[in-house]
Amino acid sequence: MIATDEQTPLSNTSCDQAVAPIGVFDSGVGGLTVVAALQRMLPHERILYIGDTARVPYGGKSAETVTRYSREISDFLIAERAKLIVVACNTASALAVPTLAPSSSVPLLGVLQPGAVAAVKSTINKRIGVIGTKATIGSSAYEKAIRSLDSDVTVSSVACPLLVPLIEEGLFDDEVTGIVLRRYLEPMLAQGIDTLVLGCTHYPLLKRAIQNICGPGVTLVNSAENCALAVKDLLASQTEVDSINHNDHRLDIVLTDSSEGFLRVAVKSLNLTIDTLAFRQIGK
Amino acid sequence: MIATDEQTPLSNTSCDQAVAPIGVFDSGVGGLTVVAALQRMLPHERILYIGDTARVPYGGKSAETVTRYSREISDFLIAERAKLIVVACNTASALAVPTLAPSSSVPLLGVLQPGAVAAVKSTINKRIGVIGTKATIGSSAYEKAIRSLDSDVTVSSVACPLLVPLIEEGLFDDEVTGIVLRRYLEPMLAQGIDTLVLGCTHYPLLKRAIQNICGPGVTLVNSAENCALAVKDLLASQTEVDSINHNDHRLDIVLTDSSEGFLRVAVKSLNLTIDTLAFRQIGK
Repeated sequence: MIATDEQTPLSNTSCDQAVAPIGVFDSGVGGLTVVAALQRMLPHERILYIGDTARVPYGGKSAETVTRYSREISDFLIAERAKLIVVACNTASALAVPTLAPSSSVPLLGVLQPGAVAAVKSTINKRIGVIGTKATIGSSAYEKAIRSLDSDVTVSSVACPLLVPLIEEGLFDDEVTGIVLRRYLEPMLAQGIDTLVLGCTHYPLLKRAIQNICGPGVTLVNSAENCALAVKDLLASQTEVDSINHNDHRLDIVLTDSSEGFLRVAVKSLNLTIDTLAFRQIGK
Repeated sequence: MIATDEQTPLSNTSCDQAVAPIGVFDSGVGGLTVVAALQRMLPHERILYIGDTARVPYGGKSAETVTRYSREISDFLIAERAKLIVVACNTASALAVPTLAPSSSVPLLGVLQPGAVAAVKSTINKRIGVIGTKATIGSSAYEKAIRSLDSDVTVSSVACPLLVPLIEEGLFDDEVTGIVLRRYLEPMLAQGIDTLVLGCTHYPLLKRAIQNICGPGVTLVNSAENCALAVKDLLASQTEVDSINHNDHRLDIVLTDSSEGFLRVAVKSLNLTIDTLAFRQIGK
């Protein structure tokens, strides 16, 4: 069930405002894969999710634009008293987090670094594949992060611009998705990768189809799962971050455009329960 | 050849500023199909094209958001002394033009009405199909425009959200595009349409593939061509619009994001020559 709440300011929602939320944002709704992982690992936390659906997608846009959008949303989340910010978007993690994290007043965590760490842990033959948006792959951010952890690793990267549109149409087990996936994956598989980073928060929704093509010899690294683990570690380790067990499990979602689009597909696929859904203009 | 010009204000470009341009805008680069048609019909006009690549696409967004973006861009074009504005985007034509046109200080023309007129002229059996983005089809704007011209016409509409991503990848004659097109078109063809409106400025780039599937019995209505004809008529008829033959054929392009993305594919496919290319933030 989704309670739609277009008018009420967030500070007037029924949730206990003494409980600072974990702020999570994405260009759209794909970052809900990170929310699902966070809820499994941190079931007592309140999560405030922003989907920038008025400007989605980020995956083909420049570092300058993506950084501007990410700064506006981070400022919004800090104004909503987020105790930490999870950038649940690989493109923003690659292009904006390096600029924004050092000056952020709360910890700001991307999905990229946890994914790179997990990939390096997973690989045996030191051949890792990465799939992502054009912007993520174009930035070489995964390649740099992985090779800074282990310079012996060979990284093969492929931009997969058609996957997000196919996923947003709910075509998870479709002939077209199969053909497109094989085109993207087969050249990397021919290079003998044993680990594949799903470098876009949409991609875990295609996990089964991707695993079928890759076969059991390739380990899929889900950046959503690994990011949630990193958040759990941060909350456990940092005393300055309020990490008390509040038992305030709730999920408030703000979208920047009133077209819900892919929201229903994602919520159903991820088995999420939304407490409130609001629409706000962020960054004009 | 494209001269990239990131810094120079448009008013300092070498073109003769006494010549007011035709302003053309789209969510991205697809509207260049309208520019190509305008250049064929009005070879002596200067065209200033805005592609809102920082916020592309509009096709899944709400009327409120699309109207806000369209107003910001129209204001920019008027500040650049555009003598008329062509909304070379079906989604903005469907969602924003009805709100913006009545109060615009210069004539503001969408692609939708000319397409509807041409479709009604073309049909013999009074069965018209329309393909477009989710937002265009969801607005029923084509259906309303067509039926206000001839209430006996039956309109079949199908939203085709995968076509723009496929076109932007340049997959014009691809197996995947063929499968996707057949899925979208076959139910309409089974209803016996004799006319199909290409209700998105990207779609003319798939004209050959669409015609192959539809067969010779279906006339394709290209909203780009029909919009250019409407602009030509307007310039010829309205004395208050400066329509003197200036012999100032030129094309200046402004994108709101520095990622050029699909620009190269479109420019090559349409055989366009760009005089200047600049990047500007519009509407924050």
